[in-house]
Amino acid sequence: MKKLVNDPSNVVNEMLDGFVSAHSEDVERLEGTDVVVRNTAPVDGKVGVVTGGGSGHEPMHAGFVGEGMLDGAAAGNIFTSPPATDMREMIATVDGGEGVLAIIKNYEGDRMNFKTAASMTDVEFEQVIVDDDVAIADSSDRTGRRGVAGTVFVHKVAGAAAARGESLAEVARVAEKTIDNLATMGVALTSCITPEKGEPTVELGNDEMELGIGIHGEPGINRTTIESADEITDSLADAVISDLELGEEHEVVAMVNGLGGTPQSELYIVANRLDEILDAHSIGVHDMWVGEYCTSLDMAGCSITLLSIDEELRELLEYPVSTPGLTIK
Amino acid sequence: MKKLVNDPSNVVNEMLDGFVSAHSEDVERLEGTDVVVRNTAPVDGKVGVVTGGGSGHEPMHAGFVGEGMLDGAAAGNIFTSPPATDMREMIATVDGGEGVLAIIKNYEGDRMNFKTAASMTDVEFEQVIVDDDVAIADSSDRTGRRGVAGTVFVHKVAGAAAARGESLAEVARVAEKTIDNLATMGVALTSCITPEKGEPTVELGNDEMELGIGIHGEPGINRTTIESADEITDSLADAVISDLELGEEHEVVAMVNGLGGTPQSELYIVANRLDEILDAHSIGVHDMWVGEYCTSLDMAGCSITLLSIDEELRELLEYPVSTPGLTIK
Repeated sequence: MKKLVNDPSNVVNEMLDGFVSAHSEDVERLEGTDVVVRNTAPVDGKVGVVTGGGSGHEPMHAGFVGEGMLDGAAAGNIFTSPPATDMREMIATVDGGEGVLAIIKNYEGDRMNFKTAASMTDVEFEQVIVDDDVAIADSSDRTGRRGVAGTVFVHKVAGAAAARGESLAEVARVAEKTIDNLATMGVALTSCITPEKGEPTVELGNDEMELGIGIHGEPGINRTTIESADEITDSLADAVISDLELGEEHEVVAMVNGLGGTPQSELYIVANRLDEILDAHSIGVHDMWVGEYCTSLDMAGCSITLLSIDEELRELLEYPVSTPGLTIK
Repeated sequence: MKKLVNDPSNVVNEMLDGFVSAHSEDVERLEGTDVVVRNTAPVDGKVGVVTGGGSGHEPMHAGFVGEGMLDGAAAGNIFTSPPATDMREMIATVDGGEGVLAIIKNYEGDRMNFKTAASMTDVEFEQVIVDDDVAIADSSDRTGRRGVAGTVFVHKVAGAAAARGESLAEVARVAEKTIDNLATMGVALTSCITPEKGEPTVELGNDEMELGIGIHGEPGINRTTIESADEITDSLADAVISDLELGEEHEVVAMVNGLGGTPQSELYIVANRLDEILDAHSIGVHDMWVGEYCTSLDMAGCSITLLSIDEELRELLEYPVSTPGLTIK
């Protein structure tokens, strides 16, 4: 197995210890848990914003804990929902008296465990469910669309609103508004390999790619021979633009997200084409985020996210933030 | 070939166009060249700081162009030195009347082309040669050690000194001081694959790794079966600590740099061990940078860099910077 690991069952524990060592000026680990919180938590009088989910998507989730974004992130094992007990501890720790908003990706385990966690505390609690993946609406093992890379925009917007001192209801409102204007689709050129299994989760031939694949290797919508970067970008962008019904009256913030095994040079080739496509549709591009935000271990491939913005969302996206994974001055 | 590319011979051109589209608030491309400069260049009365080298190491080099760091970066083709004509244009463009410092990694092509470029302008010019790779001192095709990921610390220090308004001689002095206190060593678990060739540059067996490999796939010092992350980190750290003769009287800034195909989770496992090692040596750790700074396309693996600092270097490393690849408030 071509991985820098020790004991495959201890990956998350060692990763979190390394993470808090490297970023001790911003974050700390809640003792006895796999939860990372701001080392200033709780911030009195501020709504707490938390998230959580399986590991393997780094920098999501803990990479976005810090001033102006998340107050806490609960890490599960690789591709596995965190336990409700960790979530409860996190919610109790970050509550500064104004309540806590949880940003949850639409997976059964995450939803169920956050629900249990919320029932175990007296903290005023709201949640939003992110379901930005346009590839697949329903299948036997889930209800509705999956939550993927666009979740980072929800973290950013909600975190900024909380930092500005907005109420829990207001922070939840702008998070929902972000979700309503958000769509993502991804492509995999290779499968991810989990440390526990040590071999590809999905079999993809040497000349194959899969459009619409999930961030845990869940089935996509179309497996074909590998196309050019432009053709792939066209497919992803078309799906996202159609879903959001974007036209010349719209302005977007775009994200080209690497899935872990794809170098930045390739992401910028995709960004170049995406910029041309948006221009051809006369869709305004306020900003473009290119890099790794929500990965799938070592998967080669990328996703494209578009968020349709107005003045309110633009201001919240530009609000200063200082986290290990994102800094805006 | 599992890559998001169109025409393999046009990778750098499309990547640079995507890069300047995504970061147009900070940078622009010099027309007719593969040079990226700050869009405020030249900054009157400030020493210009430039670099350049082959592409395939993103975010190095253009990712570090911006306020507080580089004024320009010349991109060659993948793993190929940029032409002297592009370098000359860059030097002329960023000169704000106080001269230009070039930060050059120790490769024959880069050295030769920067020398030619400097001879083609009247701009006051200084250069420093970065040779931080402790793996190999000499070989048939080079003189002295190679320049690798530690170069980013030289960009940071020199960029900060220039931003503070120091003279060309002073900016060159702190850059040299950084180089004198810098050492790096890397390990590859897989070879990189260049878009032009489409297959591995180096043959590495399924259970093999190579210590001390170069960022273009040049030979390392030891090929063995894959070891645990802790064992690998011990080998890399020992080599770097020995080279710098570090002890309890020293304080360092550490970098765990991903080579392109290795996910952040694994880099933090390495960071965790590195922190333990430095602690066991009673070496002070001022800061730890973990992420992708100088990659080798899609190579799996990492490098460890240590920079021994004093008060002067610490201040320059902490000086605010705003670039696509690094932001410090």
